[in-house]
Amino acid sequence: MLRTAAELIHVRGVHGTSVDDVLEASGTGKSQFYRYFGSKDELVREVVRYQMEEWLKRVGALLARLDTWRGFEEWFERMVAFQGRRGFVGGCPIGSVAAEMADSNEPLRMDLAEIFHIRERYVANGLAAMKERGELVDDADPEELAEFVLAAIQGALLLSATEKNGDVLRHALAHTLAHLRSFAAPKPDPA
Amino acid sequence: MLRTAAELIHVRGVHGTSVDDVLEASGTGKSQFYRYFGSKDELVREVVRYQMEEWLKRVGALLARLDTWRGFEEWFERMVAFQGRRGFVGGCPIGSVAAEMADSNEPLRMDLAEIFHIRERYVANGLAAMKERGELVDDADPEELAEFVLAAIQGALLLSATEKNGDVLRHALAHTLAHLRSFAAPKPDPA
Repeated sequence: MLRTAAELIHVRGVHGTSVDDVLEASGTGKSQFYRYFGSKDELVREVVRYQMEEWLKRVGALLARLDTWRGFEEWFERMVAFQGRRGFVGGCPIGSVAAEMADSNEPLRMDLAEIFHIRERYVANGLAAMKERGELVDDADPEELAEFVLAAIQGALLLSATEKNGDVLRHALAHTLAHLRSFAAPKPDPA
Repeated sequence: MLRTAAELIHVRGVHGTSVDDVLEASGTGKSQFYRYFGSKDELVREVVRYQMEEWLKRVGALLARLDTWRGFEEWFERMVAFQGRRGFVGGCPIGSVAAEMADSNEPLRMDLAEIFHIRERYVANGLAAMKERGELVDDADPEELAEFVLAAIQGALLLSATEKNGDVLRHALAHTLAHLRSFAAPKPDPA
């Protein structure tokens, strides 16, 4: 039932998905639904948590390798492939809920902000490890760069979902990576 | 009535705003509403058009100066100030409708995609003019860079609206501009 609700909300949005839609699509009864979820609000918060877990299952191993340029490349390639398989439907399942709900449901907004912070942390940690190893220049700020990366990803997903086209996603991610690489420390002189 | 509907939709989203909400907030009668707008769908499309016009009124003069670095700086500064005055409520009035509606209303999606293309064009035209004048390196691609800029802006607005914080917007825009500037052609040798 949670998976069905997650997919409906991903495509139609929170307000565009009624409890009745979820019951019908999942073949669940009303009383069973309310035994699991006290309300639609609770369902939506569970869906957001579920989408974060699914994301971690999908890309968790990649996130651990964001301390290499190849790690970033693979993450971005995976993102383009995943969205392509979905026909660029729905964009980011977290981002689209955030865009719809951030100003009308404060507990949900706080959950979403926390998820964005956790995602920023994965990127910032990878960049911090590279900096620690002397692979980034001193004035590279891993936190700010992570904010930039998350923003570029969210916007690129939104534009590709609106234009139903992978080019904008590919181009925006390529430029995001190029900017990150501009902070690479010059290779030590082999001589 | 259109302005009231636009503000409600900006904050609460499309599905979160009923025709009754619009009538109540604007003090309009139902029959008057349906004389102007055949349906809620039509209202939403008019709201999107209205938001694009408002945006052009607000920043049109700046957009004409996106063929200078100062033009980009001013545009980004204006964006941060505008969102700050709104308390980071609603994010981009076009982007948040796109995130909510792109997969459930095809005519609206096409309107939104066209608006994004028009916005990309302003950026691409500015960069193309700079390239024409020899101020950008040869391998700078104004179209791809414009897609990158639009994506970074949309994502930065979404994150700042979710985190209710201007830092992520400022940082992401600063890095976006830094990446653009990495395509500046080296100054001709004064000697």
